[in-house]
Amino acid sequence: MPEFKTVRGMRDFLPEEARIMKYIERRARNVAESFGYREIVTPLVESYELLATKAGEEVRLRMFAFKDLGGRMVALRPEFTPSIARVVATTLRNEPRPLRLFCLGSLYRYDEPQRGRYREFWQSDFELIGSSRPEADAEVLSATNRLMDRVGLRDCVFKVGHVGVLRGVLTEEGLNDKVQNAVLQLMDKKQFDDALALVKNSGASEKSLTVLRSLVELKGNRVSKIVEDMKKCVDSYEKAVVAVENLSEILRLVVESGCEISVSVEAGFARGLEYYTGMIFEVYVPELDVALSGGGRYDKLVELFGGEPAPAVGVANGIDRIMLAMQEQHVIMEEAVEKKVIIIPVGDETKTDALKIAGMLRGANTMVEFEVMGRKMTKALEDADRRKIDYAVIVGKKELDERKVGLKDLKKREQITVGIEELTETLKN
Amino acid sequence: MPEFKTVRGMRDFLPEEARIMKYIERRARNVAESFGYREIVTPLVESYELLATKAGEEVRLRMFAFKDLGGRMVALRPEFTPSIARVVATTLRNEPRPLRLFCLGSLYRYDEPQRGRYREFWQSDFELIGSSRPEADAEVLSATNRLMDRVGLRDCVFKVGHVGVLRGVLTEEGLNDKVQNAVLQLMDKKQFDDALALVKNSGASEKSLTVLRSLVELKGNRVSKIVEDMKKCVDSYEKAVVAVENLSEILRLVVESGCEISVSVEAGFARGLEYYTGMIFEVYVPELDVALSGGGRYDKLVELFGGEPAPAVGVANGIDRIMLAMQEQHVIMEEAVEKKVIIIPVGDETKTDALKIAGMLRGANTMVEFEVMGRKMTKALEDADRRKIDYAVIVGKKELDERKVGLKDLKKREQITVGIEELTETLKN
Repeated sequence: MPEFKTVRGMRDFLPEEARIMKYIERRARNVAESFGYREIVTPLVESYELLATKAGEEVRLRMFAFKDLGGRMVALRPEFTPSIARVVATTLRNEPRPLRLFCLGSLYRYDEPQRGRYREFWQSDFELIGSSRPEADAEVLSATNRLMDRVGLRDCVFKVGHVGVLRGVLTEEGLNDKVQNAVLQLMDKKQFDDALALVKNSGASEKSLTVLRSLVELKGNRVSKIVEDMKKCVDSYEKAVVAVENLSEILRLVVESGCEISVSVEAGFARGLEYYTGMIFEVYVPELDVALSGGGRYDKLVELFGGEPAPAVGVANGIDRIMLAMQEQHVIMEEAVEKKVIIIPVGDETKTDALKIAGMLRGANTMVEFEVMGRKMTKALEDADRRKIDYAVIVGKKELDERKVGLKDLKKREQITVGIEELTETLKN
Repeated sequence: MPEFKTVRGMRDFLPEEARIMKYIERRARNVAESFGYREIVTPLVESYELLATKAGEEVRLRMFAFKDLGGRMVALRPEFTPSIARVVATTLRNEPRPLRLFCLGSLYRYDEPQRGRYREFWQSDFELIGSSRPEADAEVLSATNRLMDRVGLRDCVFKVGHVGVLRGVLTEEGLNDKVQNAVLQLMDKKQFDDALALVKNSGASEKSLTVLRSLVELKGNRVSKIVEDMKKCVDSYEKAVVAVENLSEILRLVVESGCEISVSVEAGFARGLEYYTGMIFEVYVPELDVALSGGGRYDKLVELFGGEPAPAVGVANGIDRIMLAMQEQHVIMEEAVEKKVIIIPVGDETKTDALKIAGMLRGANTMVEFEVMGRKMTKALEDADRRKIDYAVIVGKKELDERKVGLKDLKKREQITVGIEELTETLKN
């Protein structure tokens, strides 16, 4: 008999972990609702073509792709954005803008497994479609910040950049999109020398190399100072200046609107996905070297999927990474812990009455386990103790004849006799 | 430009539908908690071997199976039970029994798409492991009934049978497991003549054919009567009699414990999956011909996955089928609908203050959209009306100088001026 295991890169979440995961998911849904985002559910299996259309090569080569039984080339979604773009370009084509959409679920990438990076991972996704204005970017940053705050994480840093700055310089130097994508991917991997070599070999000016070199150095949490420096640095590239101004306005709105957010601007920051066109960001905590969230503006994506041109900005929050960060920071979940009750019939003859009592308590929103092992009282109580159950309701024949049961407080080790009609009330106090 | 579509058999859930789906999921989680079931999350991609081990041939041939990039033969889970059995046989091997586990998520089968049957579907799964007693079976039936009740479905019928009755007869007639499985699968498809022919050709007695023929006819909601008749019918097959007695005790517990459940006993009822060993059931509403839930007892499964022998009983509830049934029955969801607010800055100069107000209201648990389109007031209000938003908070320069804003009730079409500090309180009333 072989021992069955999870597939490499996949994992189980046992009750204690699943509890944290579901807590984060509930909080993400609450934040989405409070900002007016409506949830949609899209399939996990999509056509390969859809998913490959605008994914960067890195993502494309690491998809779980296969042929289904009908010979269709399909894949497990490696991100939510193509599915959302598809829905926006088709079914929701005529919905008034802005559209605020929210998704939550699992995603798949064949990456080398490591801490915080698995082949199956979970994200909650916020997408704001239809507005090109800086308040839209600011909203996505604020919503992300609120999520981090609501799950109880401390010391989050938002690393923020703007691909329009780098692309502005490269465009005005005459580099085409393909070369620009390659340059940004090298920069995303922090291979700055290779990136600059590629820029140089593509015929860009010496001046641009100096500018790019300086941009890479411009980073830190003195937001206004860095933004000023960026502007000076790119002042001969008109498109890049516009991008810096846009970034500056977004950050001003976030900070001045009272959002308590810690921002680190990085002028040379790039992200792996090719579809970003404006502000981009990632969220980090000191305890982890993987980003908890990542997002930005992608104004061209919807039209690439056949929809009307629609500016858009969004963020994907890594549920399982947030979970890891919470564990690292020993965050205590702010949730009312319900009292747990076990109902133990004494012998078979009180079983149906004991079941009735269980039904009554559940109807009053109490968490009730029923003793289904037919164990002796001592054994059943020992086990209830081990499971950290709060109360045992002991249903014996003699008490039952007087419409009463035994109620044992397993923490205090005290037992009283209570009328069945008073039980719900007694347990609530 | 091709129009991208969902893959055949898969579908999107737009906001209105997703809202119902998430409502059912929350209710399923609440029922699970109220019965002491703890949620676990297992991977969607499992080894082919694990998933194929005990699935019936029908399921096995319709799995989304493929090789991953590491050459492993894997598949998308077509059901939860193998994954749970794996966890119980390995990681949770030493946990004290009973174990009550709950799962919720999507599953995949390459079936011919039809109403209520898609290639991607959602289930919530309850599994009670460690008890062979009838109160365990009764609990799973009660929990399922409670879920149907909590989502507001009416006229649910629980079709209940016991594979031990049929298997009891076949075993005592000397038919091996493989033949028994084939017979039960034919009966599951209601191909009774083929089933009986197979029994006959496998060398069973004439008497057994008469018994089986009578069993198939025994069904209906007069529970005690049918159970009595079943017992008489199989009285020369000892194992079958034990099975009938077990079924009788389970149903007695469910009914006498006050669970308002509508049961139809079917003596000849079989289910497609091979691993059932005892009571089996499915839940139907009159409006749909597919089962909303299905479950039963599978006492051999955990050991087949390498664990200690562990009796177990469970149920899978079809989330998207329950949704379809709710739509058919025009069920109104019992949920408090939150008031929605839109914040509209008048011109750019009040934007940061408007954002501050949005943050304040969200902090007080109000659903707040922000006008991110930079539209003129009339346009923005028209759009808010169309979206059925309740209130507009209008942030103009003049009012702001007095720490006030305009508050427009979009339903009543009345506008008042309110101090910013009073806004939260005013919106709550």
